[in-house]
Amino acid sequence: KTHVDCMTSQKLIRLPGLIDVHVHLREPGATHKEDFSSGTAAALAGGVTMVCAMPNTAPAIVDQSSLATAQKLAKAGCRCDYALFVGAASDNAAILPSIASSAVGLKMYLNDTYTTLKMDNITVWMEHFEKWPKHLPIAAHAERQTVAAILMVAQLYQRPVHICHVAKKEEILVIRAAKQKGIQVTCEVAPHHLFLCEENVPAIGKGRARVCPMLGTREDMEALWENLDIIDCFATDHAPHAVEEKDSEKPPPREGRLTVEDIVKRLYDNPRKIFSLPPQDNTFIEVDLEQEWTIPEHMQFTKSKWTPFEGMKVKGKVRRVVLRGEVAYIDGQVLVPPGYGEDVKTWPTSLPTTVPPETVKEAL
Amino acid sequence: KTHVDCMTSQKLIRLPGLIDVHVHLREPGATHKEDFSSGTAAALAGGVTMVCAMPNTAPAIVDQSSLATAQKLAKAGCRCDYALFVGAASDNAAILPSIASSAVGLKMYLNDTYTTLKMDNITVWMEHFEKWPKHLPIAAHAERQTVAAILMVAQLYQRPVHICHVAKKEEILVIRAAKQKGIQVTCEVAPHHLFLCEENVPAIGKGRARVCPMLGTREDMEALWENLDIIDCFATDHAPHAVEEKDSEKPPPREGRLTVEDIVKRLYDNPRKIFSLPPQDNTFIEVDLEQEWTIPEHMQFTKSKWTPFEGMKVKGKVRRVVLRGEVAYIDGQVLVPPGYGEDVKTWPTSLPTTVPPETVKEAL
Ligand SMILES: [Zn+2]
Ligand SMILES: [Zn+2]
Ligand SMILES: [Zn+2]
Ligand SMILES: [Zn+2]
Ligand SMILES: [Zn+2]
Ligand SMILES: [Zn+2]
Ligand SMILES: [Zn+2]
Ligand SMILES: [Zn+2]
Repeated sequence: KTHVDCMTSQKLIRLPGLIDVHVHLREPGATHKEDFSSGTAAALAGGVTMVCAMPNTAPAIVDQSSLATAQKLAKAGCRCDYALFVGAASDNAAILPSIASSAVGLKMYLNDTYTTLKMDNITVWMEHFEKWPKHLPIAAHAERQTVAAILMVAQLYQRPVHICHVAKKEEILVIRAAKQKGIQVTCEVAPHHLFLCEENVPAIGKGRARVCPMLGTREDMEALWENLDIIDCFATDHAPHAVEEKDSEKPPPREGRLTVEDIVKRLYDNPRKIFSLPPQDNTFIEVDLEQEWTIPEHMQFTKSKWTPFEGMKVKGKVRRVVLRGEVAYIDGQVLVPPGYGEDVKTWPTSLPTTVPPETVKEAL
Repeated sequence: KTHVDCMTSQKLIRLPGLIDVHVHLREPGATHKEDFSSGTAAALAGGVTMVCAMPNTAPAIVDQSSLATAQKLAKAGCRCDYALFVGAASDNAAILPSIASSAVGLKMYLNDTYTTLKMDNITVWMEHFEKWPKHLPIAAHAERQTVAAILMVAQLYQRPVHICHVAKKEEILVIRAAKQKGIQVTCEVAPHHLFLCEENVPAIGKGRARVCPMLGTREDMEALWENLDIIDCFATDHAPHAVEEKDSEKPPPREGRLTVEDIVKRLYDNPRKIFSLPPQDNTFIEVDLEQEWTIPEHMQFTKSKWTPFEGMKVKGKVRRVVLRGEVAYIDGQVLVPPGYGEDVKTWPTSLPTTVPPETVKEAL
């Protein structure tokens, strides 16, 4: 084992390995954009030791055989641990329960998509809520009024639902109102919606700024900060490099910065609870809270050769990642090969609804 | 008073004056299409003695002055009794409570409309639910997943909502599921969605068949019949001539016909309950259940010079309408002038939540 214990900075802190519950690793189908190896290398560089991969690949993960294909590719390619979502389609509600226990959850695409994952009918949503095993999570891509619609359907079946990448004021406010009424809903926000808004579009360039969901107005972005207390998770959605943005020099309007507790709660504790993710033994990251750096033209490991955060001055950098006893990343180098990552849904410890241990937060 | 009591048919029955809770009388703004006088004459000919008029006129009824204008025109033009809806807009939630007691309810247009009544944001829906007086009704134009969305918002405020012109299978099924969970929702169906579907479009002509909501598939239409038990009201939505279609010779797939009880419940009892409408003294209609007739190219009193039901053979015809002691209609003739109709919201008896008396259903 490699050990690098002689850190000297007083601001170096140890945190649990972070969990990104929403990544697109583009494999199979679009490995020129990203693949399991490059995407999980980037994850490790950002302090992420476990990722949950979305099923809108090509082919989409909608049945036994497409899941088996993805499992095989992920097993061969991933450098950090992972779990796979399966996707709800118009015609697969009946067959999904048979493969559900191998997945981290069911992903439902409820707004217009033009793939096999389209479900243009609430009766199909209802069928999935009826058939998908009650103890396993459901995550939804739902924008604007669709958030209210899926909350209603979840209510009808008295089960929790997780709303992906909340981006608009109306979305976060309806989720707040629902939580206040005791409705079981959780949500995640992506860093680009927290740190960028439509005012940044000219600088980023129109084509590149076209994310889904779109960047909101400044009012939308401010509403996310104002309702930070009800945001359960941070999840990158696309490029896996979350942590670095946590302390921008162009601070967001009201809060200025996130505390370490804010981060750990939303990138470790809540992801584990919501998606019943098992603990990773002997896994932690070391972050230098004082190190200042400027986000470059593109990040090192992802195949994505640009980042919308280019030029932002940020503070805080992941120095070292230890994953299941091995140093997986240290100061710009990924040390674990493709295939080191494991599918946590194959672990015997992957039991539903275990209460996660208290977060490790010891300053070195 | 005129009395015509010497009916001889054994099948002549007396029913309460019917209530159509959803009509567009197009005044002010489009009186070449319809106006209060022509629309209410057509209503009387169909056995309807009270109509609730929608606020999407030009100008739309969204504040004190537009309501006053509509009230004045309605008072001068209506031949049957009436009540007016006010419309929710993006900017009028705060001012509506001051005029709410003059209206039969708040109408919310939740799908894309391109008028002042557009509300493209759930936070605006929530504002209306917060501000509109708790004891007064809210009716929503909500299609497809928007039905689920507005049910959620109504749930958040713990108040009932009425869904207009349910047309799709997914809509009626989510309403059924909500009712089963004890959620306070009521709904109406328009005759064109009960009796026509997209298979009728070629015969009607594409332009004319373009109603909003669109005609559904045969499966949608069948779903409405299969869920008749949870349909609270029949409401015409556009042309006020509901009753005649009740017993078509091309009977709908499963039920074949509606009973008189089905009609009275959905065009009298439930409308009164849902919208807290007052009783009309000495008001009833006489219907010949045996009379057969063919729906003509266009109906007699409406300015609309066509009907999608043209050529349908139907059975059952309104012979006489007595409204507040006066014969308002008899065998093809409207006997009351414009201005005879009264705004029931100006009546002292217009109290919320009175329980309506038992339906009068005496065969003559
Ligand atoms: Zn998405
Ligand atoms: Zn995504
Ligand atoms: Zn990022
Ligand atoms: Zn470069
Ligand atoms: Zn409508
Ligand atoms: Zn209408
Ligand atoms: Zn009709
Ligand atoms: Zn003619």
